[in-house]
Amino acid sequence: MSGAKQNINIAIDIMGSDFAPESEIVGALEFLNENKDKSIKLFFVGEEELIKSEIEKHPSIKNFKFEIVNATQVITMGDDATAGVKSKKNSSISIGLDLLKDSKVNAFISAGNTGAILSTSTLKLGRIKGVSRPTIGSFFPTLKENPTLLLDVGANSEVKPQFLYEFAVMGQVYLSEMYNIKNPSIGLLNIGEEEKKGTETVQEAYKLLKESNLNFIGNVEGRDIFPGAADIVVCDGFVGNIVLKFAESFMGFFKETLKIYANQSPLKKIKVGLMAPTIKDVFRGFDYQDHGGVPLLGVNGVVIIGHGKSSPKAIKNMLYTALITYTKEINKKIEISLQSS
Amino acid sequence: MSGAKQNINIAIDIMGSDFAPESEIVGALEFLNENKDKSIKLFFVGEEELIKSEIEKHPSIKNFKFEIVNATQVITMGDDATAGVKSKKNSSISIGLDLLKDSKVNAFISAGNTGAILSTSTLKLGRIKGVSRPTIGSFFPTLKENPTLLLDVGANSEVKPQFLYEFAVMGQVYLSEMYNIKNPSIGLLNIGEEEKKGTETVQEAYKLLKESNLNFIGNVEGRDIFPGAADIVVCDGFVGNIVLKFAESFMGFFKETLKIYANQSPLKKIKVGLMAPTIKDVFRGFDYQDHGGVPLLGVNGVVIIGHGKSSPKAIKNMLYTALITYTKEINKKIEISLQSS
Repeated sequence: MSGAKQNINIAIDIMGSDFAPESEIVGALEFLNENKDKSIKLFFVGEEELIKSEIEKHPSIKNFKFEIVNATQVITMGDDATAGVKSKKNSSISIGLDLLKDSKVNAFISAGNTGAILSTSTLKLGRIKGVSRPTIGSFFPTLKENPTLLLDVGANSEVKPQFLYEFAVMGQVYLSEMYNIKNPSIGLLNIGEEEKKGTETVQEAYKLLKESNLNFIGNVEGRDIFPGAADIVVCDGFVGNIVLKFAESFMGFFKETLKIYANQSPLKKIKVGLMAPTIKDVFRGFDYQDHGGVPLLGVNGVVIIGHGKSSPKAIKNMLYTALITYTKEINKKIEISLQSS
Repeated sequence: MSGAKQNINIAIDIMGSDFAPESEIVGALEFLNENKDKSIKLFFVGEEELIKSEIEKHPSIKNFKFEIVNATQVITMGDDATAGVKSKKNSSISIGLDLLKDSKVNAFISAGNTGAILSTSTLKLGRIKGVSRPTIGSFFPTLKENPTLLLDVGANSEVKPQFLYEFAVMGQVYLSEMYNIKNPSIGLLNIGEEEKKGTETVQEAYKLLKESNLNFIGNVEGRDIFPGAADIVVCDGFVGNIVLKFAESFMGFFKETLKIYANQSPLKKIKVGLMAPTIKDVFRGFDYQDHGGVPLLGVNGVVIIGHGKSSPKAIKNMLYTALITYTKEINKKIEISLQSS
């Protein structure tokens, strides 16, 4: 049907975030209002009655194309990663991914249980040709213009050198396509700059990356992440997950430390009160919500994962990420890059 | 010679810190002035002429017992970890450790190349009976009264479950003896709370720790370090080193971010200027210098390692750490604990 614009269907896990279903429905509405692309249809996957009652609060959503897909189960954060394919086959995650597998939708987004999305996606959709292991990344704020994409942050606690190389290729395609970063630089997370540092695995990965046609800048250390030494930093999911969660706890630690200080005396309380708005303003740029989730790279389908604390804005941005990942055919480009690099 | 107080001899690597020899000599003098224990004799190991000319600036040091031990070589931060036993056998690190090995001194402190101190110590002094691998720890500030001791932070990039268990035992003895923390809690750094999370190595270590008589509280995640979930957190030296360097870069990142913000407008510059003294005051407690270095745990001798940026205060505190580690016979207690736990 050349000439006719193809419809794009995106499924949303309405039960995913900590603020579900409100974040999801409000975020979807914001996306539809802003995007105005009539060829887009959203599939709201979750408990039908809950979705309907949330939609009643936002009647303008009825101006857009959407469909409710009932899912009677919910995978919670406490559920095992295998729940999607074992005990909770009727969960919003499972049913949403079935829609994707059956080509009824072009992408799926969820702010739910990351482990469950990862394993259910991998099993249902399979891997992109040439990918040994799917990976999940996370953006870290830096002192430079762009954040750094760290991957893997938890999908693979043990890796082979080849996996690290593939993470770099996937990250490279993703950053250049999504953010127009040309030939992004790639660093290997290690405990020293020299080629012979670290575990056998990272030493072997170093060789693979050096021999590739990627823009590999060598080892980067823990201290190099914030200064933005590399656009992409690859590591195993064990260290990546620990660094990510440690980083996420910084702001909380900082706030608590200020609170403890403020409670030491009335004068200190005033001092902290005076600087609080500035602190907030300074760190506005570090809003994780802006990134619109992270793609689950390497599975054979467009799956975008959001933080449990996703706001409507985050959901809206996840929908954009899904749309661009699909329209730019990032998965196809990953396949090609893995063949050629 | 019962009744007569035994002399205590401590060797100091005068060439170690970034501010050598000044930090070392001034720190030593502060220690001697404060401590007033006439049974203590310090051995200044380094380039004789350099030491003499620094001492000339601080003539009051001549009221105390000290000896200069000439070392014609210096191991720099850029040197290989094997330099101390290969290319630079006449370095201050090698000669200082020889004094310790030959029982001419009871302890050795250095703010020099950590890798070189580690490997030279291990080779010259050997390991405490029952210790598979020596380890280096680092203190992290927390929201609780006490900091958390993370170990290993770089001595062993690959570990076996037994090593992690031994790190916990060594940390337990160290914290209870040095800081009177009774039965310190021990956490295993992992990517989830459940026993079956993470690599095979950490899963096996979990079992060893659970079966031991240590105060093991289970897995802790990256986000649990700052809240002070455990007094001691054990991990392999790869993840520990990355987390440590990442943490150390946080204050710099924070300052740079404030600077970038301040440069956006004159008003923002004023705002940041107004809060700078408060920020400084709030984070005063996070002075790494206060901890007085970290012991190299597991080698058969008292070796205290300091940060390259050690101030005189840090050197002074390292001397105290050395003194207490020696007088409390921490190495002997580690040996006993490893036999019994």
